[in-house]
Amino acid sequence: MVITGRLIGVGVGPGDPDLITMKAIKVLRNAPAVAYISANGRPSMARYIAAQYLGGSAKEIKITLPMHPSSEIADAAYGEGASRISADLEQGRDVAVLCEGDPLFYGSFGHLLDRLRGQYPVEIVPGVSSVMAAAAAAEQPLAYAAEAFSVLPATMSEEGLSTRLKASDAAVIMKLGRHLEKVRSVLEKQGLMERAIYVERVTGPEQKVMPLSELDHADTPYFSLILVTRQ
Amino acid sequence: MVITGRLIGVGVGPGDPDLITMKAIKVLRNAPAVAYISANGRPSMARYIAAQYLGGSAKEIKITLPMHPSSEIADAAYGEGASRISADLEQGRDVAVLCEGDPLFYGSFGHLLDRLRGQYPVEIVPGVSSVMAAAAAAEQPLAYAAEAFSVLPATMSEEGLSTRLKASDAAVIMKLGRHLEKVRSVLEKQGLMERAIYVERVTGPEQKVMPLSELDHADTPYFSLILVTRQ
Repeated sequence: MVITGRLIGVGVGPGDPDLITMKAIKVLRNAPAVAYISANGRPSMARYIAAQYLGGSAKEIKITLPMHPSSEIADAAYGEGASRISADLEQGRDVAVLCEGDPLFYGSFGHLLDRLRGQYPVEIVPGVSSVMAAAAAAEQPLAYAAEAFSVLPATMSEEGLSTRLKASDAAVIMKLGRHLEKVRSVLEKQGLMERAIYVERVTGPEQKVMPLSELDHADTPYFSLILVTRQ
Repeated sequence: MVITGRLIGVGVGPGDPDLITMKAIKVLRNAPAVAYISANGRPSMARYIAAQYLGGSAKEIKITLPMHPSSEIADAAYGEGASRISADLEQGRDVAVLCEGDPLFYGSFGHLLDRLRGQYPVEIVPGVSSVMAAAAAAEQPLAYAAEAFSVLPATMSEEGLSTRLKASDAAVIMKLGRHLEKVRSVLEKQGLMERAIYVERVTGPEQKVMPLSELDHADTPYFSLILVTRQ
């Protein structure tokens, strides 16, 4: 009988290493192997957050993804990452996959889970999402009891964003990157600029929080978002 | 010169005391006063989670709300709660408001913040939401990169739920309580029953996770929700 390792998705929170949970810390302290995504070979934020909690001898599995991969390239990278994780699981080693924010909320972990589920025991440690952290930084309630709340990727079409914003009482628009002008135009047409707050690199040392109307540059980093809430 | 205390909204996570963040623990250890909502005078889950981290001498401010208050009654209760918190802040004492899940995501803290903001320094510690914890329990990704995700209170009208579900790639329907049959009917009409997972009392000792189609009772607790995700 071979006992395989567990696949553990670990949310390490939005950036501030203190926004990690006790449960994640306990998993990291004992993890014999950790895996993480590195976009474009750049240092992984999740790896940075987890670093201070990891045992010294944890094996590291770095999965490299290009910055804006085609779905074929992403598919191949997740497939290769899943096989490398699988090799450790087969040897009975637990593998903790380090996930910025929460593992199952717009992260890469879902793609690894989809490839490995059913074959290995799975455990998932939820984490604090950048959406909740952005609301905390802006001191702005995301949603009240009876409200409909949406999370919309800025990559959607102008029409798609527009329709869904109209059906929402409050929203977060994520992954702004190069889509800021399109998003600004949608918000202006719906008279929502006054309710829009821009948040960049939330909880990190370079965090910025400001009314969207005061943002004067067009090139926003990938890790930026807009809150549209009741004010 | 009088130095007032800070109003601190502290997310303590969805139920499992290990799903609290390091940051929340640090705040609770030093909090001279804590406030929390008690629905119908019942024990507060947030108070229970925080208990093991609180210093022994913290003053407690219990704010009682009836179970399904009218907006006038809720208004009066939040108003009275805010004044009691205010009295401590005026004496220079920090008050940590204990919030289940995240403080600004469908919680009561927004109502207290709205009444006290601008008068006192504010700090907010985001927490793990029951939405992310439910996805972790179900081992089901909530949303992938390009998807539109909605959070919908089951208290909405059938038409409101229906329209918004159609515009979403994935959704969570919260606060089920007595609204299960309405929600089930909406999901059936859109052919979504196969994608619906029911989660009750997430991360607690009595947690239940099952396909919605296998749920055979109609009276669901308030702390239950349905995930509708890509499968």
